[in-house]
Amino acid sequence: MMRRSFQVAARLGHRRALLRTPCILPGLDPAAAFGSSTDSLVSRFCPVKTDLKDYALPNASWGPDMLSLYQEFLEKTKSDGWVKLPSFQSNRDHIQGLKLPSGLVAASDKSDWRIFTRCIQVEGQGYEYVIFFHPFKKKSVCLFQPGPYLEGPPGFAHGGSLAAMMDETFSKTAYLAGEGLFTLNLNIRFKNLIPVGSLAVLNVQVEKIEDQKLYMSCITQSRDQETVYAKSSGVFLQWQLEEESSPWS
Amino acid sequence: MMRRSFQVAARLGHRRALLRTPCILPGLDPAAAFGSSTDSLVSRFCPVKTDLKDYALPNASWGPDMLSLYQEFLEKTKSDGWVKLPSFQSNRDHIQGLKLPSGLVAASDKSDWRIFTRCIQVEGQGYEYVIFFHPFKKKSVCLFQPGPYLEGPPGFAHGGSLAAMMDETFSKTAYLAGEGLFTLNLNIRFKNLIPVGSLAVLNVQVEKIEDQKLYMSCITQSRDQETVYAKSSGVFLQWQLEEESSPWS
Repeated sequence: MMRRSFQVAARLGHRRALLRTPCILPGLDPAAAFGSSTDSLVSRFCPVKTDLKDYALPNASWGPDMLSLYQEFLEKTKSDGWVKLPSFQSNRDHIQGLKLPSGLVAASDKSDWRIFTRCIQVEGQGYEYVIFFHPFKKKSVCLFQPGPYLEGPPGFAHGGSLAAMMDETFSKTAYLAGEGLFTLNLNIRFKNLIPVGSLAVLNVQVEKIEDQKLYMSCITQSRDQETVYAKSSGVFLQWQLEEESSPWS
Repeated sequence: MMRRSFQVAARLGHRRALLRTPCILPGLDPAAAFGSSTDSLVSRFCPVKTDLKDYALPNASWGPDMLSLYQEFLEKTKSDGWVKLPSFQSNRDHIQGLKLPSGLVAASDKSDWRIFTRCIQVEGQGYEYVIFFHPFKKKSVCLFQPGPYLEGPPGFAHGGSLAAMMDETFSKTAYLAGEGLFTLNLNIRFKNLIPVGSLAVLNVQVEKIEDQKLYMSCITQSRDQETVYAKSSGVFLQWQLEEESSPWS
């Protein structure tokens, strides 16, 4: 049982951070504010060669909206600074050689771990999504197509499935933009229901990094931006992962 | 595509509600504030005879904490006014003969719909949970044991999986306590990570019903209440389901 709360962790970490000047956008430089540069975080997160299955690739269940916007962003990865994030079965695969900070250790006696947003592996039935990240602009776009196993009100996505998709997009953005590791706060205002099978586009922006916290906003809309599904904000605590070979292990 | 937002719906509904006095707890009487009594909502929601599988029953994956607290609350259903809510595969099963308000119609060309929190049917791998509701006190308790498919940080439940569990517990509470149908706002402060396989207990309370909205709070803790995992609030919009045979269909 892990008893050290995020607040205590933040206070402990804050002592270390006091020697550094907090960074507020614009002019954000997480490399100065925290340990690793965004570039090194991204390159470790997106291995060029891997045998791991990437679940963020088109499949037969993707609708025309999802497919065409995916192709649009894929083009932008060639010249516009966007990076397509791979999505492996577990976060463990993304942080190979790294581990959670000391004290955050849980029993690990099961082998089939899945990140929640990849819990359903039948194509089209659960989460279909892909995240593009822009390291310089500190923003992300997530293309999200909820399947029939994500239902809430008949025919529409469960509010909780969108909340989880937001948390996951915030999470990847926070980690890559500045080693944001733990959700401290998630605040969502729901505006419209998302029909199952349709495309929702999440636009996430890092607003500021201050006092060891990343503050982000998200607007979720239909592709034509005519319908706003939800607006949200997220606050993440910065905390560095440790090398597996660390003497503190 | 459904374009009428919750805010517009709330304003439309508010005109109807203006003739009624808003109710604030204590002394809450949703039956006066809205259409159906809590008792009639509960009895329709919990059919005595049904062939539908109830997923909120103990199975081999439930740990000792989950099992013993389940038994405790089951005893309270006999004399203390608590009701164990059944949990079917889809919300469609819970509201048979009813439908969403006019205008909220989505294509329904797939047969295998699942409520998001029952999306994984392999025992112990995903969501294991059961909700108990107290109609008089307008409160709920949800026993939640996250499995390894709900992972976020290695070994711990994804923040989004807890957000969805909160939204679902709020949702059932809001509906039964006063026909709360749509999440308007969800605000979560995360305090500690939940180890996969352990028990988290969500305590939900309806704080007030006012201006066609239900305001609820939730605290999520370990069974011994030594560790607070998260605190949250939820606001739901009251809206009546319609009879399938309604002339408005």
